Amino acid sequence: MITVLAGGVGAGRTLAGLIQLIDQKDITVIVNTGDDEQIYGLYVCPDFDTLTYHLAGVANYDQGWGIQDEKWQVMQGLQRYRLDTWFNLGDKDLSTHIYRSFRLSQGAELSQIFKEITTAWGIQMQILPMTNDRFRTMIQIKEPKKEVPFQEYFVKLKQIPKISGIRFENKNSATPCPGVLEAITEADNIVICPSNPFVSIDPILNVKGIRQAIEKNRSKTIAISPIVAGTAIKGPAAKMMTELGYPSSVVGIASIYAPLAKTLIIDSKDANEAENVSHQGIDPLVGATIMKDPTTTRQLAQLILKAFKT
Amino acid sequence: MITVLAGGVGAGRTLAGLIQLIDQKDITVIVNTGDDEQIYGLYVCPDFDTLTYHLAGVANYDQGWGIQDEKWQVMQGLQRYRLDTWFNLGDKDLSTHIYRSFRLSQGAELSQIFKEITTAWGIQMQILPMTNDRFRTMIQIKEPKKEVPFQEYFVKLKQIPKISGIRFENKNSATPCPGVLEAITEADNIVICPSNPFVSIDPILNVKGIRQAIEKNRSKTIAISPIVAGTAIKGPAAKMMTELGYPSSVVGIASIYAPLAKTLIIDSKDANEAENVSHQGIDPLVGATIMKDPTTTRQLAQLILKAFKT
Repeated sequence: MITVLAGGVGAGRTLAGLIQLIDQKDITVIVNTGDDEQIYGLYVCPDFDTLTYHLAGVANYDQGWGIQDEKWQVMQGLQRYRLDTWFNLGDKDLSTHIYRSFRLSQGAELSQIFKEITTAWGIQMQILPMTNDRFRTMIQIKEPKKEVPFQEYFVKLKQIPKISGIRFENKNSATPCPGVLEAITEADNIVICPSNPFVSIDPILNVKGIRQAIEKNRSKTIAISPIVAGTAIKGPAAKMMTELGYPSSVVGIASIYAPLAKTLIIDSKDANEAENVSHQGIDPLVGATIMKDPTTTRQLAQLILKAFKT
Repeated sequence: MITVLAGGVGAGRTLAGLIQLIDQKDITVIVNTGDDEQIYGLYVCPDFDTLTYHLAGVANYDQGWGIQDEKWQVMQGLQRYRLDTWFNLGDKDLSTHIYRSFRLSQGAELSQIFKEITTAWGIQMQILPMTNDRFRTMIQIKEPKKEVPFQEYFVKLKQIPKISGIRFENKNSATPCPGVLEAITEADNIVICPSNPFVSIDPILNVKGIRQAIEKNRSKTIAISPIVAGTAIKGPAAKMMTELGYPSSVVGIASIYAPLAKTLIIDSKDANEAENVSHQGIDPLVGATIMKDPTTTRQLAQLILKAFKT
C-alpha cells in the first residue's frame, strides 16, 4: 500500500508510471486542493482534474491541463456575454465542473464527488482531497504589492510578477479529509511527487496534522525532485525558489524535503550534486526522472520502487 | 409603443414578424418566467431564451428550443457522470445558462441579466421578466396524483399524463418586475401572443396586479389564438384545454381572453367560428395566423396592426 502526495501534471505522469508496476487499488493519492477556484460560478479543481484525465488516458498531455481534442463552444458563448474569459475551459472538461458544482450545491462533500468522478472514468485508485474544507493558496506579489489567489497568479498573470510569500487561507480551520491521516500512517511507503513544493505540496502539508504525520513517517517517505539541472520541468517552481530565497537546484529541494523524506530522487543530470544533497540530510538516489511517455514514466516508477527498498 | 405578453416559440415567431413592421425600440416584452428551472445547478429560462434566440436569428426553428447547429459535448460528459440528462442543453446554449447562473450568484437581478444577454445578441427591444422573484408553474397530475414543476411535465413526462390543475408557487409573494405595470399602462397597444394560455400567459397574469392592469386596458389589448381548427400549432395547449374543462377551440380561447382583450385574432380555418367567438364577448378578426417563415410571420404582424386600428 502506498500513499502519494500530488499536485497536477508531475503527479499525473508519476502515477501513470506507477500503475504500470503497482495495482491501482494499492495506491491512495492525497491531492492538493489549494488551487481550487470558482470560475464563472463553477467549482474547478485543477490538480484533481489533471490527475483524473491523466489516469483516464484522456489528458491533453502537451498542454498540461484539460482533455484532448477539445472544442470551445461554451467559452466562445461566454465571450459574447463579455465575460473576461481568462480561464479557458473546454467543452468536455466543463461537464466535470458543472457536475461537481451541481453535486456541491446538493450538499455532497468534495471527497464523495472525487470518488464519483474517478469511478466514472474507471480509475480504481483512491484520490482524496487533502481537505473537504475550503483552503486557498494565496500568492503575495511584490510589485505592485498585493495578494491574489493562485490561479490568478498562475493563469491570468502568467507567473510573471515576482512573489514575496505564500499564504494559506483557512489553514487554521481546515481539517484533513477523512482517511488522509490514516493513509499516511498505514502506508508501506509515501511518495512526494515532483510537483511544485510551494504551491502543490506545501498546501497539503499545511492542513492540520498532515506535516507532523509525514515527519513521523519520514523513514518510509521518498520525494522526487521537480527541479532538474536548476530548472523546473514545468511551471514556476525554479523562479519561485529564487524569489523565496532558496537555491534553485536539487540542493534547494533537498533542504525543503529533508525533514519529511529519507530519500530524494534526483535526475542523472544532477549526479554531481548528490553529495550536496546528502549534506542537507536526505539520501540522494540518482536516475532518469524526466517523464515524456509510457517508457520514461515507467523508468521513474522503477526508481521509486527501488527507493522504497533502500 | 406596444407591449407584448410572451411565452416561447409562438411569441418568438410573432415578434420576428412584428419587427419587420415596427421599430424594435418601440416594443416591450413581458415574458413568462414560471417555466424557469435549475437544471444540473444552472438557471435556465426556457421562454426568455427561446425569444432571444429567435430575435437573434440563431434559434433552432424546427426544434423550437435552443440554438441551431449545436454540439452536445457537455451533455455527453454529464452522462458519463451518470446524471439523468432528461433536459438537453447544447454547448452554445449552455454558455447562456452558465453566464446567467454566474450573474445571479453575484447578486444581479434577472431583469438586469436579461438586458445584458439581449444586448450581447444585438436585440434592441426591452424584454422584461414578469417578475424578478422566483415564481414557479406547478402542474397537478391526475394519475398517479402528484405535482411536478412545469419542465418536468413538459420535457421529462412529455406532456403525456392527464392534468387536473395548475398551481403558481410564490404567486402571493412575487411582485412584478419594475417597469412591467408601466409598460401595460403606458402602451398604445398590448398583444397577447399565441402562446399557451395556461402555462405561458396565465403565469404572467398571476403576478400581483398584472391581470388587473390588463383588464383595465382591455380596450387596447388584442390576443392571437394559439388554437387553430381545434389543435395547437405547438405544445400541449389543446390537450390541456380539454383536461381543464374548456372546449379545445377558438371559442374556448375566446372565453379565456374575453375579460382581457377587445379582439381575438383567429385563423381563416376557424372563420366559421367567428360568430361563436363574438358570443363570448370578444371581437374576432380572421386571417392567416400560422407562422412558418418570414413571409407568414409578417402576415400575422400585419393582421395585428390591423387589429390595433379596429
